[in-house]
Amino acid sequence: MATYRPEIGEHVVVQTIERADPAVIDGLAECGVATVHEAQGRVGLLDARMRPIYSGARIAGSAVTVSIPPADNWMIHVAVEQCQPGDILVVAPTSPSNAGYFGDLLATSLMARGVRGLIIDAGVRDVRDLTEMGFPVWSSAIFAQGTVKETLGSVNIPIVCAGAAICPGDVIVADDDGVCVVAREHAEVALDKSRKREANETSKRARLAAGELGLDIYGMRERLAQKGLKYI
Amino acid sequence: MATYRPEIGEHVVVQTIERADPAVIDGLAECGVATVHEAQGRVGLLDARMRPIYSGARIAGSAVTVSIPPADNWMIHVAVEQCQPGDILVVAPTSPSNAGYFGDLLATSLMARGVRGLIIDAGVRDVRDLTEMGFPVWSSAIFAQGTVKETLGSVNIPIVCAGAAICPGDVIVADDDGVCVVAREHAEVALDKSRKREANETSKRARLAAGELGLDIYGMRERLAQKGLKYI
Amino acid sequence: MATYRPEIGEHVVVQTIERADPAVIDGLAECGVATVHEAQGRVGLLDARMRPIYSGARIAGSAVTVSIPPADNWMIHVAVEQCQPGDILVVAPTSPSNAGYFGDLLATSLMARGVRGLIIDAGVRDVRDLTEMGFPVWSSAIFAQGTVKETLGSVNIPIVCAGAAICPGDVIVADDDGVCVVAREHAEVALDKSRKREANETSKRARLAAGELGLDIYGMRERLAQKGLKYI
Amino acid sequence: MATYRPEIGEHVVVQTIERADPAVIDGLAECGVATVHEAQGRVGLLDARMRPIYSGARIAGSAVTVSIPPADNWMIHVAVEQCQPGDILVVAPTSPSNAGYFGDLLATSLMARGVRGLIIDAGVRDVRDLTEMGFPVWSSAIFAQGTVKETLGSVNIPIVCAGAAICPGDVIVADDDGVCVVAREHAEVALDKSRKREANETSKRARLAAGELGLDIYGMRERLAQKGLKYI
Amino acid sequence: MATYRPEIGEHVVVQTIERADPAVIDGLAECGVATVHEAQGRVGLLDARMRPIYSGARIAGSAVTVSIPPADNWMIHVAVEQCQPGDILVVAPTSPSNAGYFGDLLATSLMARGVRGLIIDAGVRDVRDLTEMGFPVWSSAIFAQGTVKETLGSVNIPIVCAGAAICPGDVIVADDDGVCVVAREHAEVALDKSRKREANETSKRARLAAGELGLDIYGMRERLAQKGLKYI
Amino acid sequence: MATYRPEIGEHVVVQTIERADPAVIDGLAECGVATVHEAQGRVGLLDARMRPIYSGARIAGSAVTVSIPPADNWMIHVAVEQCQPGDILVVAPTSPSNAGYFGDLLATSLMARGVRGLIIDAGVRDVRDLTEMGFPVWSSAIFAQGTVKETLGSVNIPIVCAGAAICPGDVIVADDDGVCVVAREHAEVALDKSRKREANETSKRARLAAGELGLDIYGMRERLAQKGLKYI
Repeated sequence: MATYRPEIGEHVVVQTIERADPAVIDGLAECGVATVHEAQGRVGLLDARMRPIYSGARIAGSAVTVSIPPADNWMIHVAVEQCQPGDILVVAPTSPSNAGYFGDLLATSLMARGVRGLIIDAGVRDVRDLTEMGFPVWSSAIFAQGTVKETLGSVNIPIVCAGAAICPGDVIVADDDGVCVVAREHAEVALDKSRKREANETSKRARLAAGELGLDIYGMRERLAQKGLKYI
Repeated sequence: MATYRPEIGEHVVVQTIERADPAVIDGLAECGVATVHEAQGRVGLLDARMRPIYSGARIAGSAVTVSIPPADNWMIHVAVEQCQPGDILVVAPTSPSNAGYFGDLLATSLMARGVRGLIIDAGVRDVRDLTEMGFPVWSSAIFAQGTVKETLGSVNIPIVCAGAAICPGDVIVADDDGVCVVAREHAEVALDKSRKREANETSKRARLAAGELGLDIYGMRERLAQKGLKYI
Repeated sequence: MATYRPEIGEHVVVQTIERADPAVIDGLAECGVATVHEAQGRVGLLDARMRPIYSGARIAGSAVTVSIPPADNWMIHVAVEQCQPGDILVVAPTSPSNAGYFGDLLATSLMARGVRGLIIDAGVRDVRDLTEMGFPVWSSAIFAQGTVKETLGSVNIPIVCAGAAICPGDVIVADDDGVCVVAREHAEVALDKSRKREANETSKRARLAAGELGLDIYGMRERLAQKGLKYI
Repeated sequence: MATYRPEIGEHVVVQTIERADPAVIDGLAECGVATVHEAQGRVGLLDARMRPIYSGARIAGSAVTVSIPPADNWMIHVAVEQCQPGDILVVAPTSPSNAGYFGDLLATSLMARGVRGLIIDAGVRDVRDLTEMGFPVWSSAIFAQGTVKETLGSVNIPIVCAGAAICPGDVIVADDDGVCVVAREHAEVALDKSRKREANETSKRARLAAGELGLDIYGMRERLAQKGLKYI
Repeated sequence: MATYRPEIGEHVVVQTIERADPAVIDGLAECGVATVHEAQGRVGLLDARMRPIYSGARIAGSAVTVSIPPADNWMIHVAVEQCQPGDILVVAPTSPSNAGYFGDLLATSLMARGVRGLIIDAGVRDVRDLTEMGFPVWSSAIFAQGTVKETLGSVNIPIVCAGAAICPGDVIVADDDGVCVVAREHAEVALDKSRKREANETSKRARLAAGELGLDIYGMRERLAQKGLKYI
Repeated sequence: MATYRPEIGEHVVVQTIERADPAVIDGLAECGVATVHEAQGRVGLLDARMRPIYSGARIAGSAVTVSIPPADNWMIHVAVEQCQPGDILVVAPTSPSNAGYFGDLLATSLMARGVRGLIIDAGVRDVRDLTEMGFPVWSSAIFAQGTVKETLGSVNIPIVCAGAAICPGDVIVADDDGVCVVAREHAEVALDKSRKREANETSKRARLAAGELGLDIYGMRERLAQKGLKYI
């Protein structure tokens, strides 16, 4: 089932998308953004302007994507219906906006459907309520500015959110370090590589804690000398 | 009593300003920024660069306004004397500055006068102390850079702070979503509308939590179809 | 022992640097950034973009400096070996980068050597782990983006970090208000002046808390009138 | 005739505004932004993000103000009808937007009405055409992003544009240094003071060109010494 | 021929890409960015930070894409070989960089191959030479900072450049208003719609120049009244 | 003669500084910023926010440095007297400011003394006059905002300007690519290396113009293959 790409001027809601294996998704959440990003070859990060509204959340889920006009949140209401338990809503405006597209009512609705969180390259509001509800959001702004409901966008088409290309059904991983997307078809390999990376880091962490130097563990001294580094 | 507007080159301290009804002010604090902003027709927000130095505070009060030179905090000392219990100090530099105009000593002085908080489109410092004292501040920067005391400004004249026009005595509402100004003469109507909005949201929240969709509650489906949205 | 300045094209690790008296360093930590910055004549602050990854830390230490290429963290591994207990690692890229140069493994290594914290005008990652470990970092970004290990830089040469000139062995003071550098040869005088400033502030704080006005305590009224301030 | 301020939720087009004396307006244009800003006591500048789309234009005119939603240019079409020869259109979105609200068609329409230029705290497009037409624009962005026509705003109400409070009929002065607003009731005094300032500068310019020092012309040496400046 | 998407960790140079019809490409150049962007449904713009290094250029061409590490320009040298007459090189770093990846030598090489210009979400240098050579560049920075040649990227894979998803062979249109991408498979339709839009605008331009109002030409008055706009 | 570094709280004007050989300085101007920056090992660039007020100027000169308070230009008047023919004034505020410190009167005074240009990490104004006078300026802002004359700074002490450490008498090179500082004691070597670099580039430019590839001229193919680049 290929990803649907709209014709010129078309606004669509794609109602059926493929999702990755839930166990793989949960595994990626455990590994966290920095590890998964490294494991999949240092790609897939959303821009550093995406910050969590509160610290400590670490989630993964299947992307339900929303392409939306600036300062108009109508399509988020449309997108709610397309969400399933385990999904993450991913919202990108078509031109930059820091308006507050999203608040506690929409979060209530998404939580009722089992959605795990929101990624939005724009503003959110009611952040105290969202924090109390335990509904995690990564956004590029916190701002009370209201939005209108006048103009169409699309749901579950390929989007660019905060500089990263995201297809519906891709896996989103988010924690205090930011947000990363894993292509659905790469999810399993990415998890394998992440697990190996973690195992490797555990052993190194112990050696570093014992006072061994990375210069020696990673065998860097010779190459540094070859490049011409001088000790004085 | 009209708001005093200085002549060219004049620097003044206006000692008598009108304030809104304290009960109305406190009611607006309960409603919070997002609700009040919506209730008064989506106007009055200060720019999103205004962020609280700590989470969780929600206040409202009467604006004592300060127009102040860049990197010079002399007029804040002047303004303290004009503050009454229930006021909020609102400070705007005449050209951009992130210097730390305000710290724990000034906060001590304002707390002694019953001032509820500070809104400043510039920097503050001693933020650990301010947090421990429970003195809430919304600022556009945190920065230790000191200021001088050389150049006059004015107190209790109309100012623009972080993009919003504010008159002395206007009501300021501030919480984790940002800062909103309500014109003094609109305060009562704004509270009425905010209360109605809240009541309306309470019933919707319950329906959304029960799994009903906003698309249905708000009756959006027909208009979406008219605009041409396609389900695939 | 003068600070070593590299020839054109030279990359060096300077292995011996002078440090300030540990008691003076610890005294400066107690005073905090805002006080020390004022005490040494309002100089030495790093740019306000430098923010702590968690609130509440207040440290001082001797700068081990690293000049490093954009998005390449090789020289941090080199710098670890040059650190002693009580040091603070200070890292500045040669062109702007928000990549995540530093995470929990490097922090483990630095903690094993008694390093007190990291100052980096770039990104860090694993911030949840760093917070749990209690390793304080002031950075200009939080970002999971990985770095390479290909290009040399230098350790313990004079650098500019976030707009401040820093020599190896200078004292770094960092807290919630930001980061300040004190030239090693000024450290003792800076501490003396900071202590005096603190003593002075303590007495003023009590008077302000009792409701006395800064206008009177600092004797500002006459000079304000001379400058032409009008009360209305 | 007082400026009309809308009730909560009201959207209005005020059709009659007072304008300043055309001769005064043209005089202010000759003086330019820097001089006028100084002459009126260093107030009234719009933020430095407002830049001309081409160099060399210097204009003044009466403000026709537009408060407009983000990424929606409907009200500009409404405002055109309210413009008279000698006016300048001043547009401020209610939340930040860099969308391209304005292009060569609207400029054609404004030129047909004798409008002298556009000030907009948002984006414009067709800048090559606008440059060829000789229609000057000061904007905070150049961006081709299109806008919708769905949501009301107001024309000829008080607005804040790029940080400056502007009433309909105020005088706008704009050149390569930026944009300045002069309150209509201050325009004549501002021109007088600007003229005097210019006369004063002319004589100083000649002395400086001849090699005399500002230190001597302005008599600064004694006060510098009093403040403690040391020559080494 | 589908677009090649690399496996995890793979770096590739795709040597054969499909391009759009040259006549269609040249037609899109004539229409310009604002028109094409509107004609294809208000999508496809690169971020407004992309600015031309000199005014007046208007080009279109087939994208040869480059995914490149921060501050490392090695892959641009690789990409030159893949360029044909009529192409435009499109370069996106994997994490933000303003380093000067590109100067007059690379431009000389691209001009020798008939390349029409460069789009780069990073810095360029030698801009005086590039201007004299008439080689147009749209970049997010001008900066002399040099880069290294150490780390691989990929050529002719799908990239995100300045917030827009671009596939190799897509049509890039660039002028003073910014940069727009047209999907290769939409190019012909986009040109048709652009031509119609232009024809429509020509007739409107004449009517507006003659003083007719957009309010009347577009028939806006009734809908404004329905929405509640009041004339005062 | 060592560079004077002030004691805590001291404000000084250092009247005698060493300058580089005028022929070397003029040679560096001919080479330009990008070449000199590369030749001295990719260091010394001021931040990319430093932009010329008009295109086409290329200068070099000896730095007369000014450390100056935010929004206060008093010390520029002091610095004028210290300038000699061939100097470039370099101004850095102690905390960020975009105020317009400098206009046509100060430029007149500097031109009368043979000063070649101004580098200022803040705002300038009267840019149309400065352009007509042919007085080149590189600044981080253009802004009409006026400044005061109240607070001391220092002249001819080491400063950090736009992220680069600059000592009085260092050589400043500035052109359309930005601004670079060359340490006075490195100037001659930097010129030698720049000349060699230029000679080398001339021959390469001819080969590239003839269609030869950088991949072959620089012999990159083998190392790319070793790193694992795949051609598809």
